[in-house]
Amino acid sequence: MPPFPIARVLETALYAEDLAAANHFYGGVLGLERIAFVEGRHAFFRCGEGVVLIFDPRSTANIPTTVNGAPVPLHGASGAGHMALAVADAELPAWREHLETSGVAIESDVTWPRGGRSLYVRDPAGNSVELASPRLWGFDT
Amino acid sequence: MPPFPIARVLETALYAEDLAAANHFYGGVLGLERIAFVEGRHAFFRCGEGVVLIFDPRSTANIPTTVNGAPVPLHGASGAGHMALAVADAELPAWREHLETSGVAIESDVTWPRGGRSLYVRDPAGNSVELASPRLWGFDT
Repeated sequence: MPPFPIARVLETALYAEDLAAANHFYGGVLGLERIAFVEGRHAFFRCGEGVVLIFDPRSTANIPTTVNGAPVPLHGASGAGHMALAVADAELPAWREHLETSGVAIESDVTWPRGGRSLYVRDPAGNSVELASPRLWGFDT
Repeated sequence: MPPFPIARVLETALYAEDLAAANHFYGGVLGLERIAFVEGRHAFFRCGEGVVLIFDPRSTANIPTTVNGAPVPLHGASGAGHMALAVADAELPAWREHLETSGVAIESDVTWPRGGRSLYVRDPAGNSVELASPRLWGFDT
């Protein structure tokens, strides 16, 4: 049996080779708070009580690093990843307009059978980023 | 300017071809609450105010689906992805013991210069899963 329940996800990661473009998309268009940017390696953003980590997989899958003598495990994926960000139903229309005026195409706009709605866009690396109402998963807000 | 701040990450996704093994790891070893399992497509888990989605990329990157007439965008990555789950410092020793007795090797145990500690393991698909104290990112809990 697990010793304790896990409280939440702390880090959500996606991959992008063009970190400047990712930085503009996540920090600019989506407005996430930028907390770190290391050219050629990563761009990090705060989001609620967690962080969104964008890594260049050419670095993080291949270049070993250590912290206090312990290895930081390698990782890095190719192909389109996915992440959803919580946006209240009432805020989705303004987000749709903002994305379109920012030059971000709406790939799909889904109304879910159980309630809730999702806007799907692509980040500059081709990852599928969804802006979704939390009630899609049964959360009130 | 973004019309509203984004409240949090709602969905964090990783990919695995062996969903039964992923189901055992995330639902059993880590104890996340299983909310959906569709053989050959996905295994979904609740975690705090968000969800962890494990997709078989052979389905989700290739098989178009629609909801109420709108396409659900395709996505699916290969290679090792990454996610961190929030575990308090005081709970990490018991988690380390639980993982080891569950047959999950500790790939690394990192003490961060700014405070906080991370245990790194691999899920059965090879994704890098980190159990990390939230203070690593400046969160109190």
